[in-house]
Amino acid sequence: MVIIEIMPKLLLLSRDADEYIEYLGAAQLPGLELTSDPQECDIVLGEPKLIRDALSGLAHLKWVQSIYAGVEPLVDPTQRRDYILTNARGVFGALMSEYVFGYLLFHEKKILERIKAQTSMQWQRPESGVLRGRTIGLLGVGSIGAHLAGTAKHFGMTIRGFTRESETSSQVDQYFHGNDLLTFVDGLDYLISILPRTKDTDKIIDADLLRALPPQAVFINVGRGNAVDEPALVAALNEGKLAAAVLDVFDKEPLPEGHPFWTTPNLYMTFHTSAISYPEDITKLFIENYQLYLEGRPLKYVVDFEQGY
Amino acid sequence: MVIIEIMPKLLLLSRDADEYIEYLGAAQLPGLELTSDPQECDIVLGEPKLIRDALSGLAHLKWVQSIYAGVEPLVDPTQRRDYILTNARGVFGALMSEYVFGYLLFHEKKILERIKAQTSMQWQRPESGVLRGRTIGLLGVGSIGAHLAGTAKHFGMTIRGFTRESETSSQVDQYFHGNDLLTFVDGLDYLISILPRTKDTDKIIDADLLRALPPQAVFINVGRGNAVDEPALVAALNEGKLAAAVLDVFDKEPLPEGHPFWTTPNLYMTFHTSAISYPEDITKLFIENYQLYLEGRPLKYVVDFEQGY
Repeated sequence: MVIIEIMPKLLLLSRDADEYIEYLGAAQLPGLELTSDPQECDIVLGEPKLIRDALSGLAHLKWVQSIYAGVEPLVDPTQRRDYILTNARGVFGALMSEYVFGYLLFHEKKILERIKAQTSMQWQRPESGVLRGRTIGLLGVGSIGAHLAGTAKHFGMTIRGFTRESETSSQVDQYFHGNDLLTFVDGLDYLISILPRTKDTDKIIDADLLRALPPQAVFINVGRGNAVDEPALVAALNEGKLAAAVLDVFDKEPLPEGHPFWTTPNLYMTFHTSAISYPEDITKLFIENYQLYLEGRPLKYVVDFEQGY
Repeated sequence: MVIIEIMPKLLLLSRDADEYIEYLGAAQLPGLELTSDPQECDIVLGEPKLIRDALSGLAHLKWVQSIYAGVEPLVDPTQRRDYILTNARGVFGALMSEYVFGYLLFHEKKILERIKAQTSMQWQRPESGVLRGRTIGLLGVGSIGAHLAGTAKHFGMTIRGFTRESETSSQVDQYFHGNDLLTFVDGLDYLISILPRTKDTDKIIDADLLRALPPQAVFINVGRGNAVDEPALVAALNEGKLAAAVLDVFDKEPLPEGHPFWTTPNLYMTFHTSAISYPEDITKLFIENYQLYLEGRPLKYVVDFEQGY
């Protein structure tokens, strides 16, 4: 009988490496050794950009676990693809829900207007809008979209989903695919883009789509900035064809000085902070995949290099 | 065989009477007649204040359905009590949840801070707080509290409830009663008061209780203003012993000119608008109770005049 002992060596490439070491240490994973030598590692856990920069020196690389959902630097066609790439899924849904519904409620409850009324010391009572009974459209329904659908359902909303072909979340009331984009957005109160950056998602949210949204609609982008035709969005907001937009992502980040977004009305911007990657969450996900790796079974959340997610 | 035909006469005392007539007309309730004569009505549907003013002239009054949850004008000890009073419950929970979680997320996501960063055209990335994992305390767990508990559970929070003795919501993780108020608030991230105005709720939220809250805590009052020792709350906010407070209700409404609340830091005020009474919702509730009334069965949401709710 031959016992093959697997002793995988893990390289951490993250600014939160200290935290990862703590959580991984507490987990006491069988056989796992930490290494700081790129030459000898089998596994890398970290940020896609840092990993891309180290990629050419990783002689024994078998598996990369990204701590983010977006893995653009690694699926770039100029990069090697001779390893298994898994991304972080299932951990950002709850955070994205807090962000998206925080801004939807901020808008509907007229919180800013009420703050101004208070400053002017006036007992003013503008009527709030309600989420209950409204229709939300999810552009992209992966694990984050499914979580948003659950929160929307909790708030009594009707949920539409637009996907390439999958219909995995049962909380979505109606799915749309293919060329149905304008039908999908017709009559929406809220449009949420959760699309990854791929060649197919470029400028999906264009002037035609924005025109098809009702003027009371709110658009939120927590996916990737490439999905938005930025000049078209600026025009729609300037012309009042859209009640508000909330952007966490941009085509170029950081948003350049002098970009028209800085002065566009009814546009709320946050700067790629809608869902933070918490080492505690990611470690749990890594542990799950590490067990599968040891057993030689298929990993969870494997990225298709061609599709880009 | 004697068939007794009941033809109850309904008086509407609401500013939304036209809307009620429309919804009630559409429902075609058996036997129900609308009347504008206070002398001949058996049933009144309307606002507690308007009903109180008409009370002495309602010679045949058997049942009052309030369109609000709060019925202070009608449970005043100087008023008659020879009729069944039912209030509106089960309809405000969803609206209150939107309000309460709207403000909690507004606070945690640092939305105001981000708006200011945007105005100064700076790519700033303050870290957001998260609801997930936080502890919320519900002061009063009736139908509104139970709904808030459900939303808190959806967001992954731990839920404490303080009630006189009832423990009706199974979503609450831990109940507190009696003299346990300071234990109840110890370590809370959020304290939400949903207490009705009764002699027992006066100034429950006093200096001792506010001192027992952690400094990162947020206090929200969507119950009644009498529950708050207002000078103690002003002091706690001025001294930074509390991160923020959100008040929808006040001891005196409208809030008087010159009241210190107008200039207290980290205090957000809305003016008794956290849950609007929508005729469509209330009509459904009235129809349910009207069926019970016709059948001579106990009505839902009967108010105990002594307890005041």
